[in-house]
Amino acid sequence: MINSNKLKIFNDPIYGFIRIPSTLIFKLIEDPYFQRLRRISQMGLSYMVYPGAHHTRFHHALGSMHLMQHAIQVLRFKGVAISEEEEEGLLVAILLHDIGHGPFSHAMENSIVEGISHEHISLLFMQELNQKFNGSLTLAIEIFRGEYSRRFLNQLVSSQLDMDRMDYLKRDSFYTGVAEGSINAERLISMLNVVDNELVVEEKGIYSVEKFLITRRFMYWQVYLHKTGLVAEQLLIRILKRARELLGKGMQIECSEALLFFMKNRVFENDFTAEVLDQFSHLDDIDILSALKQWQYHDDFVLSKLSGMIINRELLSIKMKNSPIASKKIEEQSEKIKNLYGLSEEETAYFVFAGKIGNRAYNSEFQNINILKKDGRLKDVAKASDHLNLKTFSKKVLKYYMCYPKETI
Amino acid sequence: MINSNKLKIFNDPIYGFIRIPSTLIFKLIEDPYFQRLRRISQMGLSYMVYPGAHHTRFHHALGSMHLMQHAIQVLRFKGVAISEEEEEGLLVAILLHDIGHGPFSHAMENSIVEGISHEHISLLFMQELNQKFNGSLTLAIEIFRGEYSRRFLNQLVSSQLDMDRMDYLKRDSFYTGVAEGSINAERLISMLNVVDNELVVEEKGIYSVEKFLITRRFMYWQVYLHKTGLVAEQLLIRILKRARELLGKGMQIECSEALLFFMKNRVFENDFTAEVLDQFSHLDDIDILSALKQWQYHDDFVLSKLSGMIINRELLSIKMKNSPIASKKIEEQSEKIKNLYGLSEEETAYFVFAGKIGNRAYNSEFQNINILKKDGRLKDVAKASDHLNLKTFSKKVLKYYMCYPKETI
Amino acid sequence: MINSNKLKIFNDPIYGFIRIPSTLIFKLIEDPYFQRLRRISQMGLSYMVYPGAHHTRFHHALGSMHLMQHAIQVLRFKGVAISEEEEEGLLVAILLHDIGHGPFSHAMENSIVEGISHEHISLLFMQELNQKFNGSLTLAIEIFRGEYSRRFLNQLVSSQLDMDRMDYLKRDSFYTGVAEGSINAERLISMLNVVDNELVVEEKGIYSVEKFLITRRFMYWQVYLHKTGLVAEQLLIRILKRARELLGKGMQIECSEALLFFMKNRVFENDFTAEVLDQFSHLDDIDILSALKQWQYHDDFVLSKLSGMIINRELLSIKMKNSPIASKKIEEQSEKIKNLYGLSEEETAYFVFAGKIGNRAYNSEFQNINILKKDGRLKDVAKASDHLNLKTFSKKVLKYYMCYPKETI
Amino acid sequence: MINSNKLKIFNDPIYGFIRIPSTLIFKLIEDPYFQRLRRISQMGLSYMVYPGAHHTRFHHALGSMHLMQHAIQVLRFKGVAISEEEEEGLLVAILLHDIGHGPFSHAMENSIVEGISHEHISLLFMQELNQKFNGSLTLAIEIFRGEYSRRFLNQLVSSQLDMDRMDYLKRDSFYTGVAEGSINAERLISMLNVVDNELVVEEKGIYSVEKFLITRRFMYWQVYLHKTGLVAEQLLIRILKRARELLGKGMQIECSEALLFFMKNRVFENDFTAEVLDQFSHLDDIDILSALKQWQYHDDFVLSKLSGMIINRELLSIKMKNSPIASKKIEEQSEKIKNLYGLSEEETAYFVFAGKIGNRAYNSEFQNINILKKDGRLKDVAKASDHLNLKTFSKKVLKYYMCYPKETI
Repeated sequence: MINSNKLKIFNDPIYGFIRIPSTLIFKLIEDPYFQRLRRISQMGLSYMVYPGAHHTRFHHALGSMHLMQHAIQVLRFKGVAISEEEEEGLLVAILLHDIGHGPFSHAMENSIVEGISHEHISLLFMQELNQKFNGSLTLAIEIFRGEYSRRFLNQLVSSQLDMDRMDYLKRDSFYTGVAEGSINAERLISMLNVVDNELVVEEKGIYSVEKFLITRRFMYWQVYLHKTGLVAEQLLIRILKRARELLGKGMQIECSEALLFFMKNRVFENDFTAEVLDQFSHLDDIDILSALKQWQYHDDFVLSKLSGMIINRELLSIKMKNSPIASKKIEEQSEKIKNLYGLSEEETAYFVFAGKIGNRAYNSEFQNINILKKDGRLKDVAKASDHLNLKTFSKKVLKYYMCYPKETI
Repeated sequence: MINSNKLKIFNDPIYGFIRIPSTLIFKLIEDPYFQRLRRISQMGLSYMVYPGAHHTRFHHALGSMHLMQHAIQVLRFKGVAISEEEEEGLLVAILLHDIGHGPFSHAMENSIVEGISHEHISLLFMQELNQKFNGSLTLAIEIFRGEYSRRFLNQLVSSQLDMDRMDYLKRDSFYTGVAEGSINAERLISMLNVVDNELVVEEKGIYSVEKFLITRRFMYWQVYLHKTGLVAEQLLIRILKRARELLGKGMQIECSEALLFFMKNRVFENDFTAEVLDQFSHLDDIDILSALKQWQYHDDFVLSKLSGMIINRELLSIKMKNSPIASKKIEEQSEKIKNLYGLSEEETAYFVFAGKIGNRAYNSEFQNINILKKDGRLKDVAKASDHLNLKTFSKKVLKYYMCYPKETI
Repeated sequence: MINSNKLKIFNDPIYGFIRIPSTLIFKLIEDPYFQRLRRISQMGLSYMVYPGAHHTRFHHALGSMHLMQHAIQVLRFKGVAISEEEEEGLLVAILLHDIGHGPFSHAMENSIVEGISHEHISLLFMQELNQKFNGSLTLAIEIFRGEYSRRFLNQLVSSQLDMDRMDYLKRDSFYTGVAEGSINAERLISMLNVVDNELVVEEKGIYSVEKFLITRRFMYWQVYLHKTGLVAEQLLIRILKRARELLGKGMQIECSEALLFFMKNRVFENDFTAEVLDQFSHLDDIDILSALKQWQYHDDFVLSKLSGMIINRELLSIKMKNSPIASKKIEEQSEKIKNLYGLSEEETAYFVFAGKIGNRAYNSEFQNINILKKDGRLKDVAKASDHLNLKTFSKKVLKYYMCYPKETI
Repeated sequence: MINSNKLKIFNDPIYGFIRIPSTLIFKLIEDPYFQRLRRISQMGLSYMVYPGAHHTRFHHALGSMHLMQHAIQVLRFKGVAISEEEEEGLLVAILLHDIGHGPFSHAMENSIVEGISHEHISLLFMQELNQKFNGSLTLAIEIFRGEYSRRFLNQLVSSQLDMDRMDYLKRDSFYTGVAEGSINAERLISMLNVVDNELVVEEKGIYSVEKFLITRRFMYWQVYLHKTGLVAEQLLIRILKRARELLGKGMQIECSEALLFFMKNRVFENDFTAEVLDQFSHLDDIDILSALKQWQYHDDFVLSKLSGMIINRELLSIKMKNSPIASKKIEEQSEKIKNLYGLSEEETAYFVFAGKIGNRAYNSEFQNINILKKDGRLKDVAKASDHLNLKTFSKKVLKYYMCYPKETI
């Protein structure tokens, strides 16, 4: 049991207080690996649209753990046995589930590293910490990998209704001020139960599940895929690509040692040695932002222009449509810029480009949400709901966009 | 202009402060007709499910007026001319839009009166007040009736996106504590505009409109049609029916003079004279609740049993389904009760009964919500939305229920 | 352990959800004695100033119990042993601490009954319930009476920092919309500890205690002693006094049987038999308000005038000062009214009267708040605080007022 | 009038929406000088205590402007004439009042620059912007300097009750989650009025003013002067001092160009040329944090140790008292560290040091808050209040502290 003097409480504007329930968890939070999350913003560049969105992955991790404490309490109250060891496993797994995120993560998964998911890196960090803490994370790792025999524990950490999603939707809604994105995590958790080792939602919670899915979709389109945030993210991807190119050509690029490492090396999943992990553990938002601040004065026109766009929030224009952008339109814009600044084709493509984005809020094939009917049968929410056409709802929506400079750059 | 000493501000937990913008409005609020709304609960018997739901129609009327002030400000800012006279008309119309509500209104529209809508009675009250205030409500009445030439003014008071709905959804969500029912009235209002005299929503507001419609549906099923609230309401309807019957048989029924008037007389729309209106103006929740408190000791078994059920919250059980209840089930329950208490067929029907309820959140045939596309065209939200299958969504959902006594009564 | 099917949860706009932790508590809540609290407003006539203030003693009792659950959890976490039996005792004691409140309680303690505190009546109800529930409330009663050997349990129910105060301050602030009256109950509870069987606050909580005391004082002056609420309360006291007088003179007064009982009989503490308790258990806000609604048409000028004042919110004017009102001023106003309406001296006194009110937020002599210094010593907060002059602060503040009719009545 | 297409709205979790009222203000916000504030945290290193406290000066500036819009509306409603030109002056002045803040400002005023206040630098920025925008900031500057003839305008920007304080108290309370620090800005603003060109508070607002002053004091002790935040700030000051020293000795220190400029040069008020301002305009939190990240690997023991302490949140211990720390205690700790690491006296002083902090929430000599009595007289709140001993309250409270390494470093 934790020493009362060590009893640590974090203030949280959303839940009031977050309690640290054990010494192991207290030490994990104190670890530099975890402290790094204080310097990684949860929503990347979204603060350019929502100026309140500066909350960190550190805070989100604590919040998810708080909800997990609540879920454990509810399930135990309903008679689901969860041992003390399993409890700590759950709490550690959810606390560390995002520890592998890098800075501006969604932009980075294919520019800092080569197609490595943050979950994979989280696992590497957890394995490191497991060594450091003498194996006390073994069960947490099993749960995190989804390999624990009592599947509902895994599902509390990762599924359509996991504590991660509940906290980030609530937290992102809160900090952006997009009030209608708020979900009622407490009600959802109150409706959880376990049948045959699977996490299920009691029937009376069906409206809340529907509401949760719809709110998630709303947050995607209103916030996560907001076109201004999208432009900023695309710019950042291109800045790093450019930096890498210039380095490849032997030009000098000033930035932190850790960032330089990843700019110089292409790191695939198999390359992720302990040394790489160490480099990665020094990377955070500060490395990226201080690089951009320097690069806005770089000699390369492309690198400096794009960096300045983010620093001074003078972003490209964006047009969004439900059908693909006509290539003629892209060519027109490209031609204009190319001529105006005497750029090469390749350089022009940094300023005029097209793409698509999509979202599928409820993916019924991958992981379903089971509703526990009063008669004891289970039914997928997509079938149990008589209010929403969830089949339509689970269809992927695609949007097409084009970015290009406002008048002159 | 209002005298600064008279400057009246109401505290509101939702909006902070509600300002009274003119002397006329101040006087209307002070009028006994309007003060009566302090004694009429907004959500009727829903407090039996949601113990916080004791807010009144008085507060809702003030809240709707507050949102209207906001909408006027937004539209003017966008260049829509609204004269000072029209402003006051709008504010008075929305302030008084619900003044015709009786106690536990949804239960009462067919038991206190015979199929008279509260809107009709609101109009009668407004006409009375117009006389009292020397014709200064004439424009407000025109707007309230939907007959003013600039249609968007009428729509601000009554349409799919009027200030009434925005306030009651927000307020009911707030006081029930059903947090996920909260809508972002401010964002919706910010997205309003006017085209060809019609109220429209700017394209970037489409997610918010979708969210609003879905939240409304959520509130219907989670709150307004909550099965426990439904039982209580059905009980109340039957209590009044029974009282009327007993009076018809010459039995004595004690209650307030105003309630007695409506129990003794069947009042159809054409019967609603000034005298009836005066009687009606004395009716509020207190009349009903004090009657129930007395009637629980009445000699009539049915009247006393049912009244006690509401007072002590010992309600009937309810079963709800997507298909009609088999008549056999109803008969079974009826038989049991009939025998147990030696009741007549007619009396038994007070304790065992079935019914259906429905909701259609977005009624596209009746009044649509127009989205103003960036190219200036208007499109019904049901067609403009690519996220939700609003056609399905606007289909009416029906639920069937049966009420019956828990074990013994 | 409670059957999971029976697991009852209440929605609360303040705490989210309130869980009912045991079958006994569930049954107590279902009891008609407790359901009565749904019809007793927590803040009496304050809704005339703050239109949101319609929350009930029912909700407050649940809220206090919720905070108690939290306090038990915190203390156990700090190593303070609390047995399951003590836990239930605490929860029952706080749940029922206000069950003896009558309607508009502060006005009633000397007009419905003769100087009987609501705590005394709560005790009578608890004793009744203890019989009904076969002695299972015995420990709760001991705690409620402050006679349990482990004093901190008693203090959690009744002291300067009890769960009752924390909930009502938070709840009243919330429903009135007086946001600055909000206290941080969760932080205060987190700072509680136990030394030598006494409830203490850890040193780092000293700012929070100061804040709590000051906020309480703020709420007193801004809300509880608001001059408009004060007038309404004084009117109500006088209405009941008048009704009693008229009854004494043999006039007929219509009202509910229970109210009539208390109007006809003067009930002192020793008169409070089981029969009186039964009558009392039928009294709630509805009895008073329906009486006022009838009495506004009574033949007696005083009774009808005063009753109408509350129903239509046409209250007397009030003047408030730091020194006593000159008797000359009172005489002037009295003379005016007396002549205008041809009233007797005695009748005039119902319309023109003076009084005083006071508040002492922190009463150091009665019950102090002990701060647990880091070195283990205890210190009264009045001495431990170096920020506020709590000696001055604990001095009683008195205000003097006079009520009189606006122009003509 | 602003073009409706340009109508810009910011989401704010606190106020809902913040509207940009004019094209000039829109352009000022877009200016890189103002965008810089997005990278300057409002509360410096307080996020080490309160993990939610990552909000920026950018957001605070917008929030203050929002409150100013509200104050203008209230005063006009009360009949105080404010011209459109004055309105824009007020809004620009409050928007830019903090534009001169550097990173971690309180730590920096004596380490980045030599005793130059951020207000002074704000003025320099405003003068630059005034040139750029052809003199349209002239009135705003006059108001900001407190030199405008209608003094209440100056007071809305800077006084005991200015919009700056109201926003930062509200915002800091919100983001830290220290709920009891919330003030009711809207109520305070509603109580403002103007007498003889001075900003006053109407008498009925006296409790709110008291509450505001006490809450401010609470926030100081609970949040702004929190001992952990204090340690972090003191560490940062010493890190910069050390960097400067090492540079003085000719050692190499890597950091951004702008930071290097201020590390190499001591800049007094008179040295603040356009070139210095330009350097300053490139400084933000990123420069400091990226420096610390690099310096934690510097060869200098002091610099690297201290930098690592902040990055990994392994701070010094701190002891706080009401009386000065005995020099013997400091010597003891110093001796221990000195021996353990073989440090010089000078180096040791970086790890063991003492200091004092103070706060005076209401400074009655400097700027008082005038209460407007109902009879028209003005009275300082310190005299008008009969609840709090504001004389005592306005006495400065001092606390003494010592910092030293936890066991070993």
